Amino acid sequence: MDVVRSRRRRLFQALQKLGADFPVALWSGRAPAKNFPANRHYFRANSHFLYFAGLGIENAVIVMDAGSDRTTLFWDEPGPDDALWHGPEPSRDQVAAAVGADDARALGDVYKFIDGGASIYLPDPGARLAQEAVLGRSLSTSPEPEGIDGVLAQAIVEVRLRHDEFAIAEIKKAIAVSIQTHKLGIQSTKNSQLESHVCAKMEEVIYGNQCGTAYNSIVTIAGEVLHNNCYHNPLGRDDLLLADVGAETALGWASDITRTWPVSGKFSPTQKALYDVVLDAHDQGIAAVKPGADYREIHLLVSCVLAGGLVDLGILKGNPESLVDSDAHALFFPHGVGHLMGLDVHDMEDLGDVSGYGPGRVRSDRFGLGFLRLSRILEPNMVVTIEPGFYQVPAILNNSEWRDRYSEMVNWDRLADFSDVRGIRIEDDVLVTETGNEVLTADLPADTDSIEGLMLR
Amino acid sequence: MDVVRSRRRRLFQALQKLGADFPVALWSGRAPAKNFPANRHYFRANSHFLYFAGLGIENAVIVMDAGSDRTTLFWDEPGPDDALWHGPEPSRDQVAAAVGADDARALGDVYKFIDGGASIYLPDPGARLAQEAVLGRSLSTSPEPEGIDGVLAQAIVEVRLRHDEFAIAEIKKAIAVSIQTHKLGIQSTKNSQLESHVCAKMEEVIYGNQCGTAYNSIVTIAGEVLHNNCYHNPLGRDDLLLADVGAETALGWASDITRTWPVSGKFSPTQKALYDVVLDAHDQGIAAVKPGADYREIHLLVSCVLAGGLVDLGILKGNPESLVDSDAHALFFPHGVGHLMGLDVHDMEDLGDVSGYGPGRVRSDRFGLGFLRLSRILEPNMVVTIEPGFYQVPAILNNSEWRDRYSEMVNWDRLADFSDVRGIRIEDDVLVTETGNEVLTADLPADTDSIEGLMLR
Repeated sequence: MDVVRSRRRRLFQALQKLGADFPVALWSGRAPAKNFPANRHYFRANSHFLYFAGLGIENAVIVMDAGSDRTTLFWDEPGPDDALWHGPEPSRDQVAAAVGADDARALGDVYKFIDGGASIYLPDPGARLAQEAVLGRSLSTSPEPEGIDGVLAQAIVEVRLRHDEFAIAEIKKAIAVSIQTHKLGIQSTKNSQLESHVCAKMEEVIYGNQCGTAYNSIVTIAGEVLHNNCYHNPLGRDDLLLADVGAETALGWASDITRTWPVSGKFSPTQKALYDVVLDAHDQGIAAVKPGADYREIHLLVSCVLAGGLVDLGILKGNPESLVDSDAHALFFPHGVGHLMGLDVHDMEDLGDVSGYGPGRVRSDRFGLGFLRLSRILEPNMVVTIEPGFYQVPAILNNSEWRDRYSEMVNWDRLADFSDVRGIRIEDDVLVTETGNEVLTADLPADTDSIEGLMLR
Repeated sequence: MDVVRSRRRRLFQALQKLGADFPVALWSGRAPAKNFPANRHYFRANSHFLYFAGLGIENAVIVMDAGSDRTTLFWDEPGPDDALWHGPEPSRDQVAAAVGADDARALGDVYKFIDGGASIYLPDPGARLAQEAVLGRSLSTSPEPEGIDGVLAQAIVEVRLRHDEFAIAEIKKAIAVSIQTHKLGIQSTKNSQLESHVCAKMEEVIYGNQCGTAYNSIVTIAGEVLHNNCYHNPLGRDDLLLADVGAETALGWASDITRTWPVSGKFSPTQKALYDVVLDAHDQGIAAVKPGADYREIHLLVSCVLAGGLVDLGILKGNPESLVDSDAHALFFPHGVGHLMGLDVHDMEDLGDVSGYGPGRVRSDRFGLGFLRLSRILEPNMVVTIEPGFYQVPAILNNSEWRDRYSEMVNWDRLADFSDVRGIRIEDDVLVTETGNEVLTADLPADTDSIEGLMLR
């Protein structure tokens, strides 16, 4: 409770700095229905609400008033029938106490308390409608909040960018579960025939620990499909299995880990060669994480290490820096090196680049930079992922325009020697400290020897 | 493809019988976003779309025209960037072929083809808005479709009430996975400390078999909370564990099974006594399922068997029929004996009582009947659940109004002897055949000896 009060105080200060004195209303959201109202997806509260209220209760609003330094909870107790179906629920006063609210009122009264107030819209269009009705105005549908909502977004980013101790402890909890998850995934591969078998084993660890998945798990032999959420492929002995799986705690704090391992238990020489290039990029990227470092430069550094490794293997030709300048690395590493992590796996991505991009920075339209989600000077208590990869994406490599553009820089014949690698990614979560960084996921090894060792168990 | 064509033909005939000749548009829906657009709940297509299109593709519409006997698919192929993130997708023509559509067009063109057409609204308010924009009119927000949409709902119910062979085969697939799931849940209890451990083990079977959960799993020692979706309780040696868990196939066909077992591996004498009452009601309910039987009467029969059993145990006092007439059974069995099952676990519940209640029938406001979801004359190829239970719900048993009303009918002192029973439910899925019924879930035993035997393994 002290935690959320201190967060709210910091929000008020951030708003004040921006010259803003409007009240702020945050909605928790509702579980969306699947086929009919009684059959719902599980409830995941909006992250801004979770951050400033500290608990995820459905269909609630908090109004925070910087002027009076007061927070009011708006929430209706479920009807008497509800106890039969969903068990006893806390009272409004109990919820208000848990939230550290100064006052508690009926949900229907919100509109009386947010005259001229700002909000962040929920991603669900139906929920946004309800917000608009209460606020008495339209919310922007552009990717980034505008007007007073844009000012609020800036203030929220200012507060949420650097994590407090409570948040870091929660992230560590999520990571501990994810490490167990990955170890079991690696170990259970030898007894699995399908991607779905490994994925289900991994998620069992997450659910058994009363966590949720921070994002839809990726467990696939088709690692070149970056957000692959199908699990139907059989595991072939020559395949690499890429698993990008992370738990989130009951309070919504995320973790985000990727490992790639050989189904057979043994990397082939070509797999090991490419894996070690990615690992080197990963290690050098992590080493560069520290206060004052520019995350965009870390992305370029990692790209350069990758390009250099591919030159050494004879896949790329030329000087690593020039290859990166011409985006040749992006043929094989088309995404960014990572992102902020916190209550969202891509923290505050709902605010567009207000969160990921520092003042005055805009997304590049370069092939090798356009997917970079984070471009900021790093500060203590930020948590970022470092996740380089190597992929052979048919949609990229068979694109005749790109083949022409990079014809001099790629040795396609040599590349063909590495056909047993579809996708490799190695991803860890890194806390920026006062003096450097702490790899929060360090207990899960990433080198090929350790991974092969885990598979023997 | 022949299956969906035949379903559409039956829909056209049903519409014709109702004197309707409007075109019908069905939307598949979209996966709802969690915190930001790139982080979504998994996609579950709308059941009516799934039924008549035969596959669950996101953001598609089919328009079925009874007059011309033609079906048109409206769907946009993902952009080129999409292949990087989500892998290669089928072309519009490939999807149209899979759906057996006569024509395929851009999603934006739907509005040109459904002038005066009817639809069923999606449960998501944002999705409904999009439907309204395309249809050029408002869709009813009452629980049941109205106007031409109400006529369409009637026709859909007429077609979907009785399952075709393909559907029954899919339901059997889902049930086979659910039976494995429950067996593992029963067996893994001895090595589990928390509800979440058993739940995660059970869901691992579902996900490993590339199925989804047909509804949010209930795995709880607090069986008296009917739709309990929390899993944090420790398993006590004296507890009964109630698991209501069902798989749905990749095409969305459901199963729905409940078993209740003792954490210790052995029912106590009081647990066994009450369990056998519920089992007797369950068996007699199933025996009554046949063509021509009135499902409402089965509910009352089951209630009567329960009441009789409770009289025998000294918990209720009086004549079973009169006890049921006065709803005394509902103190301990407050829900209905079951529901339709198909593509939805409560099949077509999005259509309100148009699906569950036969012509001229309306919900009772009686305590013991108001939650009955199905009141129809049974016909061959319907699938229903039979799921009696016994619960000690504090919100009911401590309600002073009810305690007064039923003071003469309940022996509260005797009830106190059964304090180690919070909730028992036994649920099976039953296909109505030409001559009687087939218990589709028969391979999962329900008697106490068999359950104790499974726990020994």
